[in-house]
Amino acid sequence: MQVAAYAAKSPEAPVEPLEITRRDLQPNDVLIDITWCGVCHSDIHTARNEWGRTKYPIVPGHEIVGKVSATGANVRKHKVGDTVGVGCLVDACLTCGACHDGDEQYCEKGSTGTYGGTEPVIGGQTHGGYSKQIVVRDEFVLKVSDRLNPAEVAPLLCAGITSWSPLKHWNVKAGDKVGVIGLGGLGHMGVKFAVAMGCEVVMITTSEEKGTDAKRLGAHDVLVSTDRDAMKAQRGSFDFLLNTVPVKHDLNPYLMLLGRNGTMVIVGAIEPLEPMHGGLLLSGRKRVAGSGIGGIAETQEMLDFCAEHGVTSDIEVIAMKDINAAYDRVVKGDVKYRFVIDMATL
Amino acid sequence: MQVAAYAAKSPEAPVEPLEITRRDLQPNDVLIDITWCGVCHSDIHTARNEWGRTKYPIVPGHEIVGKVSATGANVRKHKVGDTVGVGCLVDACLTCGACHDGDEQYCEKGSTGTYGGTEPVIGGQTHGGYSKQIVVRDEFVLKVSDRLNPAEVAPLLCAGITSWSPLKHWNVKAGDKVGVIGLGGLGHMGVKFAVAMGCEVVMITTSEEKGTDAKRLGAHDVLVSTDRDAMKAQRGSFDFLLNTVPVKHDLNPYLMLLGRNGTMVIVGAIEPLEPMHGGLLLSGRKRVAGSGIGGIAETQEMLDFCAEHGVTSDIEVIAMKDINAAYDRVVKGDVKYRFVIDMATL
Repeated sequence: MQVAAYAAKSPEAPVEPLEITRRDLQPNDVLIDITWCGVCHSDIHTARNEWGRTKYPIVPGHEIVGKVSATGANVRKHKVGDTVGVGCLVDACLTCGACHDGDEQYCEKGSTGTYGGTEPVIGGQTHGGYSKQIVVRDEFVLKVSDRLNPAEVAPLLCAGITSWSPLKHWNVKAGDKVGVIGLGGLGHMGVKFAVAMGCEVVMITTSEEKGTDAKRLGAHDVLVSTDRDAMKAQRGSFDFLLNTVPVKHDLNPYLMLLGRNGTMVIVGAIEPLEPMHGGLLLSGRKRVAGSGIGGIAETQEMLDFCAEHGVTSDIEVIAMKDINAAYDRVVKGDVKYRFVIDMATL
Repeated sequence: MQVAAYAAKSPEAPVEPLEITRRDLQPNDVLIDITWCGVCHSDIHTARNEWGRTKYPIVPGHEIVGKVSATGANVRKHKVGDTVGVGCLVDACLTCGACHDGDEQYCEKGSTGTYGGTEPVIGGQTHGGYSKQIVVRDEFVLKVSDRLNPAEVAPLLCAGITSWSPLKHWNVKAGDKVGVIGLGGLGHMGVKFAVAMGCEVVMITTSEEKGTDAKRLGAHDVLVSTDRDAMKAQRGSFDFLLNTVPVKHDLNPYLMLLGRNGTMVIVGAIEPLEPMHGGLLLSGRKRVAGSGIGGIAETQEMLDFCAEHGVTSDIEVIAMKDINAAYDRVVKGDVKYRFVIDMATL
């Protein structure tokens, strides 16, 4: 089937209209009319080939919300008219140990990304959500409650689950003192989740202004990381740190904030970090871990939690034609906290 | 009471005889006639003031085995004639959260080191095991089975527990693939413990010769870390890595060995490490943790396990007068795998 979309055609060119070919509906597939699509920084890295592995043309977008418009014969999970979501994954083997454990994102045979992955039926590469429609295997389609604003749900499918998964994996619970480092797409969801879970939430940021905004989002306290006295005063007091800083940085000042058996999880920085001090890990048996997105079942669990607690993303809605200007603003950090494309404007 | 000992009197001077004052037996104290004392690299760092905090004179030694020769009126745990051990700790508050959890080594009020700590009764500093006798609070004295060679037990009190604690804390279990990085005092105990726990144990070393020795200790396989093809072949296959490397090094090649949810625990390097790659943590949700010695209950658990499984340290016995030559050999890595002083020679 031919579908209208917006694609990047080269590293320098703007994202612009392109008709793409998607596979026809297979027996296990769901056809989704896309209504909203979030704009993730990964979209920009991919469109501009900043990770060096983009094949053009490519349709970005992996924070997808829409309505089911058709289902294959074997589909049981979803029905026409349902509001649904699709995140960063559209396929995996579902038989390996990782898939068995609900870690489809770490599928041993390699999961299929929503864009830039290998399209398993018609070949070529997968294309994402900057598009009128998408065809996705039943198991990788999430249920979205109609109690939530669907535009504000879109960013939950990547920014949301990336913050949610480590909080759950490390058993963060009510009463824990949780620090969220960095206030962007991921960090603002980390604050909202940890607050909704009943944690004592501290926004850790270099910017007083971001601190004020974090309080609006529910954070109980703000710690300005450039204030050495304030950092010293909170030394050893945190159970958990969600580190959303997306660039190379020094972990050591944050390690000093952790208490005994405390954990810092890195979800943003995928590059070499500044030298970490071994002694800071040894004293108090601290841990530094990484985490990438989340599995399908836990993404559903997050969406259900959001419906129950009224948690969604803070967004700015844009028209499809404004995507290139939005990219420039994301790069400058000028968005609170996620752009979402109104796909009716395509 | 006055006790014969060997002490360091300045950073440059040899360790030599000195009569020291120990507190008289208190109601909760155990008096121990020391029979064996292991030589830990920390003894050398302290004797030579390499950590910059030594107060002279200082009696090193925190791998102590001996016989109870007197007990205070309130002592219930131990009786005269028992074979007992003392490790790195001789006191802690026993009331804080850490102590409550059996983590006396992380006591929130500060635990008291066996040497160089604050002597709580008579003031001044605590003195360690290079000595005829030691007075230790009942709760910090460990039971040693007479089924084990007491000389070979001594190094369990520091090298042993430092390797044991992370294996237990991270729930390493039979069938897990465990890599031990570095074969010294800690690493050789890590190999023995993991083998006795039923793990698949791989010695990871730069030295073919150490690999051969690790196999003698029970390791099932050897991975030479400078062999890039061999490292690549085992990529993603380890559940757990015990990293005993005592100096600054690059964690990244080892992170690549870990599988999904795999953990590397650093027990040796207490200094800044080479820059760690964030992406290696994110892919597969890996963790890097630190760990220092262990609590009293888990040290007893380790000693009981050792008695049950016949696990002890590989040692070379020396006379007290040969301590300075032994230090030089430890610094050169010329010991398999721990010197133990026969305290009858003092």
